[in-house]
Amino acid sequence: MRRWIAILVVGMPGSGKSVFSEAARELGIPAVSMGDVVRLEAAKRGLGQDAKTMAQLAKALREERGACAVAELALEHAPSAPVVVVEGVRSLEEVEFFRRAFEKVLVVAIHSSPRTRFNRLVARRRGDDPRGWEEFVERDRRELAMGIGEVIALADYVLVNEGVSREEFLRSCKEWLSRVLTELRARALRVDEGSQ
Amino acid sequence: MRRWIAILVVGMPGSGKSVFSEAARELGIPAVSMGDVVRLEAAKRGLGQDAKTMAQLAKALREERGACAVAELALEHAPSAPVVVVEGVRSLEEVEFFRRAFEKVLVVAIHSSPRTRFNRLVARRRGDDPRGWEEFVERDRRELAMGIGEVIALADYVLVNEGVSREEFLRSCKEWLSRVLTELRARALRVDEGSQ
Repeated sequence: MRRWIAILVVGMPGSGKSVFSEAARELGIPAVSMGDVVRLEAAKRGLGQDAKTMAQLAKALREERGACAVAELALEHAPSAPVVVVEGVRSLEEVEFFRRAFEKVLVVAIHSSPRTRFNRLVARRRGDDPRGWEEFVERDRRELAMGIGEVIALADYVLVNEGVSREEFLRSCKEWLSRVLTELRARALRVDEGSQ
Repeated sequence: MRRWIAILVVGMPGSGKSVFSEAARELGIPAVSMGDVVRLEAAKRGLGQDAKTMAQLAKALREERGACAVAELALEHAPSAPVVVVEGVRSLEEVEFFRRAFEKVLVVAIHSSPRTRFNRLVARRRGDDPRGWEEFVERDRRELAMGIGEVIALADYVLVNEGVSREEFLRSCKEWLSRVLTELRARALRVDEGSQ
């Protein structure tokens, strides 16, 4: 099966990237998480799952195998489907990497305010989630240092995850995905017909 | 009159920041543009208004007078009103500067896709606007190098300016401003009453 479209999801910690991936999976679109790929690698190496270790490992991987090391691992983990969601890209280099690997790339930024993200992360308490405001700000800075802000600034689409419940955001992600993919398929069909 | 709230507007070139300022002015809220402040300074110094000269001047101002030089000039130009809109902040340092100068700061990001921004800028043809895709990408990179992506990533609100006409976006900016300011005034009133 040819690899056609990669939908790259970018967002600060706690913005709701995983809800987008869940929406994709519910529509039968495979989704791979860059964060999970790093967490898997951490488990392989017998490392902890806290934010600092994860950041250090992501950095080490990039130093060992180049700026797109995590993107390469994610691509290895991604099933060979026409449309794939990749959750958690962090730099323009990674976006360029996926542009080379797929025919078409869409960058979708998920945005929530810092206050909302903080409240969600404190409630979530995953191993790498912050326990206080200072830890939260520190983690944000680490993500920004990787270039995540540039990817957000240059995204093709922004979905705002603010003032709605998880269920409502899940529903609007599914609606958005259905609409965009229908448009892309219709356009591809017109192009195919045009070339006959 | 005390300075109360600064609404800082951040967005990539061509995203529609000036439409937001226009919405503010139509509601009687003064708006000052960081870009206009640099353009004024360029005129004072007898310099041209092309993107490269503007970027060089903004950089020179920051080297001469510190990272917040343009923010300081903008604050000097801003009238002493309870609510002021500042269009075109570019770094987290500038946001911090305004946090020190105002009681409350809201950061609003305006987002449009690169393709949409390019089409708008080519149609606008202001002195510092790009004529081709390469010039556009180069200008984006210059803005990102100043830290604009980080400000967008950490914004309190994102307004998406995509697939709507200028008039529709103007109207939704006005609605957004009216709603947010009504909420803030109501909250301030409750706080004032509570302290009596």
